[in-house]
Amino acid sequence: MFHVKRAAELDAADELAKQRALFSLPEGLVYLDGNSLGALPRAVPGRLQDVAGREWGELLIRSWDESGWWTAPERIGDRIAPLVGAAAGQIVVGDSTSVNVFKALVGAIRLADDGRDEVLVDATTFPTDGYIAESAARMTGRTLRPVCPEEVLGALGPRTAAVLLNHVDYRSGRLHDLPSLTAAIHAAGALAVWDLCHSAGALPVGLDEHGVDLAVGCTYKYLNGGPGSPAYLYVAARHQERFDSPLPGWTGHANPFGMTPEYAPADGAVRGRVGTPDILSMLALESSLDVWEGVDVASVRAKSLALTDFFLECVQAYVPEGRLELVTPLAHAERGSQVALRCDDAGEVMKALIARGVVGDFRHPDVLRFGFTPLYVGFGDVERAARVLAEVL
Amino acid sequence: MFHVKRAAELDAADELAKQRALFSLPEGLVYLDGNSLGALPRAVPGRLQDVAGREWGELLIRSWDESGWWTAPERIGDRIAPLVGAAAGQIVVGDSTSVNVFKALVGAIRLADDGRDEVLVDATTFPTDGYIAESAARMTGRTLRPVCPEEVLGALGPRTAAVLLNHVDYRSGRLHDLPSLTAAIHAAGALAVWDLCHSAGALPVGLDEHGVDLAVGCTYKYLNGGPGSPAYLYVAARHQERFDSPLPGWTGHANPFGMTPEYAPADGAVRGRVGTPDILSMLALESSLDVWEGVDVASVRAKSLALTDFFLECVQAYVPEGRLELVTPLAHAERGSQVALRCDDAGEVMKALIARGVVGDFRHPDVLRFGFTPLYVGFGDVERAARVLAEVL
Repeated sequence: MFHVKRAAELDAADELAKQRALFSLPEGLVYLDGNSLGALPRAVPGRLQDVAGREWGELLIRSWDESGWWTAPERIGDRIAPLVGAAAGQIVVGDSTSVNVFKALVGAIRLADDGRDEVLVDATTFPTDGYIAESAARMTGRTLRPVCPEEVLGALGPRTAAVLLNHVDYRSGRLHDLPSLTAAIHAAGALAVWDLCHSAGALPVGLDEHGVDLAVGCTYKYLNGGPGSPAYLYVAARHQERFDSPLPGWTGHANPFGMTPEYAPADGAVRGRVGTPDILSMLALESSLDVWEGVDVASVRAKSLALTDFFLECVQAYVPEGRLELVTPLAHAERGSQVALRCDDAGEVMKALIARGVVGDFRHPDVLRFGFTPLYVGFGDVERAARVLAEVL
Repeated sequence: MFHVKRAAELDAADELAKQRALFSLPEGLVYLDGNSLGALPRAVPGRLQDVAGREWGELLIRSWDESGWWTAPERIGDRIAPLVGAAAGQIVVGDSTSVNVFKALVGAIRLADDGRDEVLVDATTFPTDGYIAESAARMTGRTLRPVCPEEVLGALGPRTAAVLLNHVDYRSGRLHDLPSLTAAIHAAGALAVWDLCHSAGALPVGLDEHGVDLAVGCTYKYLNGGPGSPAYLYVAARHQERFDSPLPGWTGHANPFGMTPEYAPADGAVRGRVGTPDILSMLALESSLDVWEGVDVASVRAKSLALTDFFLECVQAYVPEGRLELVTPLAHAERGSQVALRCDDAGEVMKALIARGVVGDFRHPDVLRFGFTPLYVGFGDVERAARVLAEVL
């Protein structure tokens, strides 16, 4: 009973607890999979009705101007910017994360000195980054070298053009040291490209502060943009003038309606745009970002650590020793906003958890993954999740 | 008055007239811009509510399986297939047209014989195709050669790897001869890549019948998928096994949830997938395709030609000779589903038309463009558009 009481105390003192009312979540569900698909912000369905019914159905083509459709990619980019520590004008929304990895990595290779023929990629990355990095290297005549994040320092050298790393490992939940890795990459004369899929919206990133060169991220995890919502691309202001996109679509043109046969790239973040923006998804994302109004990322991080700490505490109290192996690092400096636990029968265990209203996810072959989203997960949820996990085990 | 009476007769005899009730269009508006943004199918807002509120909000992550989200790209591709004359299993939906042009053209270059170092592109194309083709050529070490469609035959040769052409010219509305151009490209040993943005949903394409190699198209014009809705990629079945995408994202992997570091491409159209599908836009598109149930593309084409013929007839009757120059070819075999008219003050004329409830669009510097979408434009609309045009002029 100690942990139930403690959860109630923590919830009562939680300054972010009021944000949960902004989300629509099924009654009684403990949703610890927001690191895969964020929950639905309540305002989104109404906004979608307005976009489809009025902006599309009534205003039709006029909405490209009058409803601000045309400028949505950079406008929404500026809404995401403060969440990842970027000044305005450096982020543009659109395309999938994979497509943005391609833009960012080819862009980084082209920004690097010509003689540098090697690209390092996080070997533990979410696979798509590695697949796309392989294509980016192949199409620019570079060699791709997969290395574990802890091997990056030793692998950097005069041949390194660019390094693609994940801020938080999607499987283990390990948080990598973005400031020091970026500094080391720069010291070696290379460019740092960061994938923020599992960190943006859960912890401070500090893109500008730490001098990151390029970055990408999805918006459907901690940013709650909806299933497969558009991803984003960050190109640091100092690189924008030389950023040479491998996907120079017409909406990234300096004068897109001039319809000229020569490509003249736009200034600023807009250069990262490709085709016609996908308005329904994009404006749903814009609406979903309202839940961040007045929220400080530092307080999100504080709650996130408190949630994962408390989960580990409850698991330790409830689950017999030796039944689970902790995959996520204990040190706060190395922990994202998820807890990964290993057990042989993880697939079956997750099915049983879901059947009892505790939703996490299973990562092949033996990992239970629980994501803690500070805007709508409370300490009571955490206690219940650990209790149900113990029951299932 | 003759043309008013004639319009009423044509509308009364129009077997597609009943489809208009499936669309939500503002009262009294003559919408001739469906070749830029198709009108809203009535069913879409309700479907979006269900996708956002129930599938996302209640089922959450389970919807990837239970609501069929994961297979949406290939399922919706199979819905588009009959509209462009393709058997099932060759079309996948996702990404923008620009991104798909990149996949298709790089794919075609890689399918062509190694020694072929030249890529031909329609010099009159919608600009993004040319910009992306330039990048595709650059990144594969080929030379891009822009040629007018009528110059293609003379430009083909042993150096030609691939040719990217538009089925219908976005500006003039000219329909190019896909069967004979494709045959000529094949006779030269090259691959034909067609952009169907301005033909799919307006006229028969016959991708399989004419042996097209790869094709792309958008879904927000004659297919009414919504602003910036996902585009599609066609890879002919005979090429799929060797199709080597420059954007090998995880969702095109043979075993995407295996999360293996090596890329093993899926069989079939699925290989053309890249990142996580954008579900809100994709399922809105799927819903919008219901308006095609029971509709035969041949009857759409017959009505489209009748609409453009009647528009030209009314314009000739109402507008003083010499005031407008016809840009679109008169021959049916060379006409898409739009009429482009040139006049010096086209920008001002279009503004005045729109102010009077007749919506077409203006293409820099001097073109009035009117799109005729057979599913929701009637002959009465056409007569009124011509009459208002004459008044404005």
